[in-house]
Parts: sequence; C-alpha cells; structure tokens
Amino acid sequence: MALLLKTSSDRGPWWREEFGKALPDLEFRLWPATGRAEDIEFALVWKPEPGFLRALPKLKVIFSLGAGVDHIFEDPHLPEGVPIVRLVDEQLTRQMVEYAVLHTLRFHRQVPGYEAQQRDKRWHELPQKMTRERRVGVMGVGEIGGAVARKLAGFGFDVAGWARTERKIEGARVFAGRGQLTPFLGRSEIVVCVLPLTPDTTDILNARAFAAMPRGSYVISIGRGGQLVETDLLAALDSGHLAGAALDVFREEPLPASSPLWTHPKVTLTPHVAAITDPRSALSQVVENIGRVRRGLAPLNVVDPKRGY
Amino acid sequence: MALLLKTSSDRGPWWREEFGKALPDLEFRLWPATGRAEDIEFALVWKPEPGFLRALPKLKVIFSLGAGVDHIFEDPHLPEGVPIVRLVDEQLTRQMVEYAVLHTLRFHRQVPGYEAQQRDKRWHELPQKMTRERRVGVMGVGEIGGAVARKLAGFGFDVAGWARTERKIEGARVFAGRGQLTPFLGRSEIVVCVLPLTPDTTDILNARAFAAMPRGSYVISIGRGGQLVETDLLAALDSGHLAGAALDVFREEPLPASSPLWTHPKVTLTPHVAAITDPRSALSQVVENIGRVRRGLAPLNVVDPKRGY
Repeated sequence: MALLLKTSSDRGPWWREEFGKALPDLEFRLWPATGRAEDIEFALVWKPEPGFLRALPKLKVIFSLGAGVDHIFEDPHLPEGVPIVRLVDEQLTRQMVEYAVLHTLRFHRQVPGYEAQQRDKRWHELPQKMTRERRVGVMGVGEIGGAVARKLAGFGFDVAGWARTERKIEGARVFAGRGQLTPFLGRSEIVVCVLPLTPDTTDILNARAFAAMPRGSYVISIGRGGQLVETDLLAALDSGHLAGAALDVFREEPLPASSPLWTHPKVTLTPHVAAITDPRSALSQVVENIGRVRRGLAPLNVVDPKRGY
Repeated sequence: MALLLKTSSDRGPWWREEFGKALPDLEFRLWPATGRAEDIEFALVWKPEPGFLRALPKLKVIFSLGAGVDHIFEDPHLPEGVPIVRLVDEQLTRQMVEYAVLHTLRFHRQVPGYEAQQRDKRWHELPQKMTRERRVGVMGVGEIGGAVARKLAGFGFDVAGWARTERKIEGARVFAGRGQLTPFLGRSEIVVCVLPLTPDTTDILNARAFAAMPRGSYVISIGRGGQLVETDLLAALDSGHLAGAALDVFREEPLPASSPLWTHPKVTLTPHVAAITDPRSALSQVVENIGRVRRGLAPLNVVDPKRGY
C-alpha cells in the first residue's frame, strides 16, 4: 500500500512529511524512486509521461496536482477503469476569480488608456461606459467560471456565460453548445476564458471567434494555452478589431523569448500565475479521498473521461 | 419659485430640459443668468464662489453636484440655517468600489512587478500572499467606504476600517478616532482613502502616517487631494518604505505638468475619474428632495455643518 508522487516542483519533501502526519500507515514514495510498481495504489501526478500510469497494475486512484486534468489525458495509454480525480480548491477558484475581476475591471476602467495618458502627462477624462452597459462573457461556467460570472454580476456587469451544456448561473444568461458560441461572442465586449482543455476547446479562441466579437473588445485567457491561436490574436489586435488581451497561459510555457506577445503594446501577460495550487488544500482533498476509497466509497471530484474534465 | 444651477460643465441645457419634464412648475435658471435673487429657493451647485449663496435671501436648500461638499464649505460666508444636501448616488458608490477593488487587486496580485518582468521578457513566478493574509485598510467607512470594505471582505481580504466614530461594518474591524489611527495604519498593507475632506482630514496622509504603515505598503487615494501631502508620499516611495500608490485626486487639479507624480515609476494616476456623477441619478435625487420640501418634509442626505460631511 503506497502513494506515489510525481511532481515537477521541489515540494516532494513537504508532501512526504505531511502525508506522514496525515496517513502514517500509507507508504509515501517520491518519483523517480517508484520501487515495486505493484505496491502503488494512489498516484498524485503532474504531467505524467505516456504509459507511466498504466505501468502501475494495482492503481486505484489517479490524483491530478491541479484543477485541470488535460496534462493527464495527453497520455493515450491511460489505464482503463481507474478514476481520475481533479483538485477542487476553494483558494484556487478564489485566485482565478481575483485575476478575472482584476483584468475585467482593468479593461472596463481603461487602465491602459490612462497609463498612456500619464506617460504623456495628459489630464483628460476618457468616455466611460456604465458598468451595467458593459457586456462580459465567461467561457466555461463550471466550478471556476460560475464563480467568476457570479462575482462579475455582483459588480453590476451585464454577464453571460457559455458552456457545453445548458445550466443556470445566478445573474447571468448562459449560452450552450457550439451553436450558441457565435451569438455569445457577438454580445461580449470582454471575454474571459476559463474553459478546461479538451479536443472540443482546443483552438477555440481563433480568428473566427475574434471576428464574432464586437470591435474594440478584450480577451482574458486564463484556461489553457492550447485554446488560444496566438497568431490569430496578434492579427486581431494589429487590425484594431480587438483592443487588448490579458494572457496567463500559452501554447508553450515558459513563453519563448521569440514570441511577439512579450512586447505587443496591447498584451499584458503573466507567467501562468492566475492561480497557484495551495499544497495544504490539495493535501486535505487527497487525504479525504483516500479515506473514502478505503471505506469503500467512490472518491469525490472524479472527472468524466468522455468529456475530458 | 425658481431653481438655480451653477455648474462648470456644459450640461446646463440637459438639466434645463430634464427639470422642465420632471418639475414643469419650477422655473429653471442657469448661472450666470441668476435673475431676481429673491426668486431662488433651490440652488444646485459645484464650487460656488464665497458669498454667492448668501446673496440668495429665500434659499431653502443647497444641493451639491457631487458626493463631497467640501467645495461648498470652502465658502466662509454660507447662509445660516439653509440645509446642504449631498448626492448619495448608487452609481457613484459603485464606481468608487470598482476603482478601489481594481487597484487593491492590482497591488495584491503584483501587476506592476509582472509588467516589469514582461518588459524584460522574464518568466518568473513572484511569491504571492494569500488573500486572507493581505491586510487592507479603508479610511472612511460611510456610504462609500462601507461599500468598499464590504466588497473587499467578500474577496477574502483581511479588512479593517477607520472612522471618526465607532461603527460596525460586516466582515471588517473598525478602528475609531485619532487615537486608533496609528494602530489602524500599522496593520494595513494597502490603504484605501475615501474620506471626506474636512479640517480634520486635511493632510492626514502625511509622513507620520506612511511611517506607521508596514514597509512595502501601498496607498490608494480617491477621497480628496487635500488629504495627501504629496511631497511626503514621494519621499516614502523614494526611500522604499512604500511600494506604490494609485492616485485619483490631487491638491491642484488638473495636476500641473511640473508635478513629479506624473513620471514617478511607483505612481499610477488618473484625472479624478474614480467616480463620475451620473446626472440622471443626481436629477432624480434633487427632484425627490424638492418634492419632500414642498410637502413640508426635511430633505434627505443633509450634511452636518459641524462635521463638514
């Protein structure tokens, strides 16, 4: 009976100590010191290599070290029938909401424009839309996107959401399915993307999507980099159709120094820090789920492999 | 029976038309065409010259064209016994909350630091405090400050308020009076000032106040320019004691081109646009209050001349 941790961070020793306190009867192993593969019942992973998890024959649960699980589904050889659990971290949701609200307000209140005026020592009041007139669209209205939409609605924005399937969000109209994507984008002056990465959402922020948005709109991309066609974004910014973008996720991370996004005057970017997993919160969820499995219960927050999230 | 409007904006004709619709039996006069002073019962003013209001012998109510009334109290010859009414504009409060939240999140999430890294094409995660660990202090917890404090508490910040007298704000500890100003500042890493300008609050953001704040703190000044000793702020920023400031109000407005605030790398400034009075909302309040006075009721939102707000 052992748990195997595979992480790219240097927090291995912290996890060892904390698991030792919380589950003293569970053997903790830190990859690459996997030991006997037959002992591993639980794997806590970030970006496992293809075939890595299938090589653990007694695996009962795969835990993702993040809210997204696309890094696991990239493995075409996943073991069948082993539940994959994602983190549902209140702190993580809270941080995503902060980032989304911060950049929505930044664009709504024209911070880039006022910064340009400050550089020119220009004292001039820019025309300002009322909050209730500003249409914000949130792509993805699950755990995180729902919280983002509700918070923005609480400021008085005219908020809509877009989701794969019909659902209800307090204070926001929800558009559902591919068929309603264009009308959703057509009414959204600030689009916040918090979608999970799946085959359906790959490249979803592309030239056609930007063309559907009203002229002078903004994009806030904090889901996954694979959703954004970066060359299409640059073209839409350069043509003047889009007014600005705030990006936290990229197709290649770290973003290569050669990327024109770094220096584009309409782009604000951050190094994938919109939300950082709090290891204490992750720990308590993993410990709780191991307890459930040992008592014969299903783990919480299992993802649907067909949907991919 | 007439109302006199004195404004520095070009909205006079709009007011004339709207008053004509809402109160067709009330004569509307636009300064400087005051006409017979004895006819004026209501004055709606922004920055009236000293003695201007006293020269109206039948004046029943003085309406401020803004939430602040310091521009009226600057007149040492105000008529005695005439109630002064301030605007309590839900939109105005909402905009102040937006500005305060925007800049609090901007400092909390280290936007200036990430912008500097972007200029250097540097991909690096900055250490980030948890929201609940970030202590925000709101100076002034009346109509506007109370709303700011509640909204910030709703994000999970550790919020305290400071007020002249004891009061309660949901989710925030309130420090009261001069005696508790230093302990309030001593625990506040981000200070948002939304105080009204009175003799008591003039120069309140001075070298002593900054020294009381923890090293690396931030100031967001959106009350009145007379509260901030600009040279003291610059010294505290230059010494490294303060990490940044967001300023919307200044001792002299427009801010003179000679001011070093324009180009200071730690200062973000805007031209007094944190909240812009919505004339439609102002209109409905003035109309309602005139109706009350005509029915023999006291007007709403009368300021206390002793407190000055």
